[in-house]
Amino acid sequence: MTYCVGLKLKAGLVLLSDTRTNAGVDNIARFRKMFVFEKTGERVVALMCAGNLGITQGVVTMLETAIKRAKGDPEVESLMTCETIYRAAQLVGEAMREVQKRDRAEIEAQGAAADATIIMAGQRKGGELRLFLIYTAGNFIEAGEDTPYLQIGEHKYGKPILDRVIRTDTSIDDAVKAALVSMDSTLRSNLSVGMPLDLCVIPVDELKAKTQRIENDHKEFRQISDSWAASLKQAFHSLPAVKF
Amino acid sequence: MTYCVGLKLKAGLVLLSDTRTNAGVDNIARFRKMFVFEKTGERVVALMCAGNLGITQGVVTMLETAIKRAKGDPEVESLMTCETIYRAAQLVGEAMREVQKRDRAEIEAQGAAADATIIMAGQRKGGELRLFLIYTAGNFIEAGEDTPYLQIGEHKYGKPILDRVIRTDTSIDDAVKAALVSMDSTLRSNLSVGMPLDLCVIPVDELKAKTQRIENDHKEFRQISDSWAASLKQAFHSLPAVKF
Repeated sequence: MTYCVGLKLKAGLVLLSDTRTNAGVDNIARFRKMFVFEKTGERVVALMCAGNLGITQGVVTMLETAIKRAKGDPEVESLMTCETIYRAAQLVGEAMREVQKRDRAEIEAQGAAADATIIMAGQRKGGELRLFLIYTAGNFIEAGEDTPYLQIGEHKYGKPILDRVIRTDTSIDDAVKAALVSMDSTLRSNLSVGMPLDLCVIPVDELKAKTQRIENDHKEFRQISDSWAASLKQAFHSLPAVKF
Repeated sequence: MTYCVGLKLKAGLVLLSDTRTNAGVDNIARFRKMFVFEKTGERVVALMCAGNLGITQGVVTMLETAIKRAKGDPEVESLMTCETIYRAAQLVGEAMREVQKRDRAEIEAQGAAADATIIMAGQRKGGELRLFLIYTAGNFIEAGEDTPYLQIGEHKYGKPILDRVIRTDTSIDDAVKAALVSMDSTLRSNLSVGMPLDLCVIPVDELKAKTQRIENDHKEFRQISDSWAASLKQAFHSLPAVKF
């Protein structure tokens, strides 16, 4: 399983993913699920993937190949050269459809699931911040002002804190904290989501991504996790009693 | 959908269920999902149901009918007359199998889901507190010391708080608060879980249930909900910042 969350704020994009994959509980491995493509000052596009790892790696490889080919051939359309970020989401959807067409029937014949979802976020020079969720079928939705975040994978454990604190005018600092708390709740409740984490922050109009890998011994993440646990317990014990 | 949680503590059993059922989002209704059978001083058995409402009502009706028949006929085995609470869980499983056998194929032929789960908890005179989860297949598991709670229905949103505060030696007062906070998180994140709530407390060796319906305007529940929301926000804003 996986947990990835993307937040679209007026101040920028915040993306966080875990790195655990598993084929059953006895076959656990680490794989990067976040991919960032950047041409500083021109365009940043980031992807986060959940679902069948063979499928999502196939989609990412196809998109990366197009990016490389587009460097030598202006006719090739890629995430980094296409006209808009909306069109980039379509390209991800088209790659998803192609890989599903190629692999899905064989995967399902083995009794395995071929479903996959991808969060794509980014900004191009002169454009707005955009945040999309692309489904197995290649169709997609975009985050708006009312719900400024999107999640894929094991999303339920970490949703309550986002619902409580994330608004479109939340600061990037607070959004990073909320994403980490949301991930922390998921890590505690679901074994199939695991450290390390990948964090990516794309401040509005900077057209530049700040990425960071958060390992198990990351001091600030540990502080957030411990401080949150202590605060929750304190908050819990200060709740009024219920008569029954 | 539904959310029900049962906690088995040294001090007693705490059970909480919502009352919302829906066939799609445009057909929402209230149905009781908690059923308590009591012979004070002798035995208490409580059920909470999730899943296909026709199936669970069928199971409960079958069990209630047996309880009534057993009053006039000592040969009839029922939840209130069977030898142990473990045997009572088997009776629930047998009723589930019978109703599934009767209805499942027809329900699935309509493209609907016939799955259902039931939490059964109770104590008989001379016995221990027991807490079981009965599955669609009629098999079941029992809560132990390591995981002293069981959930059915929309369980993920409300799991983190239980993981953080519930131990087998948690007091009944704290367990009631934790169950209400767990329900509150679920209500906020999932439309298909709704007020009012049914609360049942069965203190150890009292062989007597205290039940309470919690309506939307229930003062203490509102206080817990508001106090929790305020504490979470405060806890969140006092988290240390993360450099990136």
